[in-house]
Amino acid sequence: MATSTKAYGVQSEKDNLKPMEILRRDVGDNDVKLDITYCGVCHSDIHTARNEWGGSKYPVVPGHEIIGRVTAIGKNVKNIKEGDLVGVGCLVDSCQECDPCKKNLEQFCEKGATFTYNSKDKHFKGKQTFGGYSSSVVVDKEFILNIPENLDAAGAAPLLCAGITTWSPLKHWNVKQGDKVGVIGLGGLGHMGVKFANALGARVVMITTSPSKAEDAKKLGAHEVLISNDDAEMAKHKASFDFILNTIPVGHKMDPYISLLKIDATMVLVGAVEPLEPFHGGGIISGRKRIAGSLIGGIKETQEMLDFCGKHNIVSDIEIINIENINEAYDRVVKADVKYRFVIDMASLKN
Amino acid sequence: MATSTKAYGVQSEKDNLKPMEILRRDVGDNDVKLDITYCGVCHSDIHTARNEWGGSKYPVVPGHEIIGRVTAIGKNVKNIKEGDLVGVGCLVDSCQECDPCKKNLEQFCEKGATFTYNSKDKHFKGKQTFGGYSSSVVVDKEFILNIPENLDAAGAAPLLCAGITTWSPLKHWNVKQGDKVGVIGLGGLGHMGVKFANALGARVVMITTSPSKAEDAKKLGAHEVLISNDDAEMAKHKASFDFILNTIPVGHKMDPYISLLKIDATMVLVGAVEPLEPFHGGGIISGRKRIAGSLIGGIKETQEMLDFCGKHNIVSDIEIINIENINEAYDRVVKADVKYRFVIDMASLKN
Repeated sequence: MATSTKAYGVQSEKDNLKPMEILRRDVGDNDVKLDITYCGVCHSDIHTARNEWGGSKYPVVPGHEIIGRVTAIGKNVKNIKEGDLVGVGCLVDSCQECDPCKKNLEQFCEKGATFTYNSKDKHFKGKQTFGGYSSSVVVDKEFILNIPENLDAAGAAPLLCAGITTWSPLKHWNVKQGDKVGVIGLGGLGHMGVKFANALGARVVMITTSPSKAEDAKKLGAHEVLISNDDAEMAKHKASFDFILNTIPVGHKMDPYISLLKIDATMVLVGAVEPLEPFHGGGIISGRKRIAGSLIGGIKETQEMLDFCGKHNIVSDIEIINIENINEAYDRVVKADVKYRFVIDMASLKN
Repeated sequence: MATSTKAYGVQSEKDNLKPMEILRRDVGDNDVKLDITYCGVCHSDIHTARNEWGGSKYPVVPGHEIIGRVTAIGKNVKNIKEGDLVGVGCLVDSCQECDPCKKNLEQFCEKGATFTYNSKDKHFKGKQTFGGYSSSVVVDKEFILNIPENLDAAGAAPLLCAGITTWSPLKHWNVKQGDKVGVIGLGGLGHMGVKFANALGARVVMITTSPSKAEDAKKLGAHEVLISNDDAEMAKHKASFDFILNTIPVGHKMDPYISLLKIDATMVLVGAVEPLEPFHGGGIISGRKRIAGSLIGGIKETQEMLDFCGKHNIVSDIEIINIENINEAYDRVVKADVKYRFVIDMASLKN
């Protein structure tokens, strides 16, 4: 059994997003159903809609920064009740049994995590999952996040992807009071990186090519702004960073950033899911430096991040749109013309 | 005051190595003088003699894998006496005061470590240091290593560079009993990496493009050999390595090796002091993988490595040459035609 549900999606990689009907499964014993109130717009939504990473299966209904109110629960669901403010991020299922799952790293599930959209759907054979650009969704209770009620619900939506993507490496690499932390790139990810690094007590340096972003960066919590194509400024900061969060979403030259790292320090890539430019081996050999990657975060860590946000009243800076403006929003995301995340008011889908 | 000392070196980057006379300082209060009995031939010697890394100052006397017997000590030298079998590696001085020096990472001294050759010589203003292709050397006591007497002295020479270069990352990244460790490249560095990883209890996989090296790799301690250009074999080992020691000395494609790493695992580069080929950001983002560099090791760690070698009777596999054959040896090193390190019998310099 399944319920026909309103959604917005694409039928092919050349298509604009349009209204469509999708099926949502009935609420099983372990399931939670929510009415979606807000959904953030992530660059991954666009990559998938347009098949820019390959592997998209159509139709595609994007959206993995989902906020909603619980409307039904299965009989095994204990700690969630109707009316709760909840979130769903990039993950809706995993095997729960493999080594990474047991270590709360469901994103690296050895059997393959089920992502919120464009993943194989266990409940509809031969079909893929559909994301949050829709009026409701049914998700296994283990993948439902509690959203602190004091947070602005729309601003909280991007925490589910942009938030956890930047929080996870900052925590995993133990960024702490007094560390000098660089955040490269001031977009949806970078602006959350700045907020989190600041809230964790670090001295935050926004690293950007755009002097025009300095004022905003400081409002978001950066203590200093470093213009990365100013060689003299870069030289002053040489070998001084304890950690660098690199949110650049495309291939780029890494040597100048590597030179900023202290001995034993790490730069973590969270954005560039594509080939990088060559870097010089000597840059990491001299100083035992490290380059690493990080992918979203596990469910436990996501809840910890949300609880931290509740305590520190942290949400994303967003621009709210109606669903009928989604195609224009996509074009603006591609041009990096948004401060710093679009969030869809899903009430607009009902009208 | 200084003593004229026999050596072998080059007067320019186009020059062959020839006999020359250099000055060694008198033995100061903190100094140890040794008669050099053996000196290993490292590829860095060649790069520096030929100015392939830039910055060479002539004349160049290479050699930083030095074994000798103590012939004189300064009055402040307590734990070393005449006749002791000692070694000198890549470092002969550092500030001893900065943060890295205090952490026993003299190779990363903030004031600039003094390397054994082609570094600014504190004792001869405007001159550079001269290495171990000579009959004697005077070195600060803090940079003198104790060589276990049970070791073959000639085979111990390469421990001072090839040994510590591979030991340090294996220890720093905590390679232990039962880990699956890959060693890429079977040269001077790689053959030591195999021996050490085996002695530390790891399951060692030699990763090479050359099936012809399989037999030798197993004799050295590899449990398995993985031919890196066999895609089917590489796929079998996907995401299975706890640690990879990458000794490839030139730029290369890293993606296939990155795919071998487990979640959170690290590949450490110790050889490629040059630009690497582009790698795909997605390869490290999926699996929170890490790429790092490592440069020789500090003095304390070098002594620990030598003590471990004494206990486990580990030395390099070498080919002994006389100093007059050094130019031919260089040509063979460039062609990777040596198993696995040339060591100069320095008695040949006296004749």
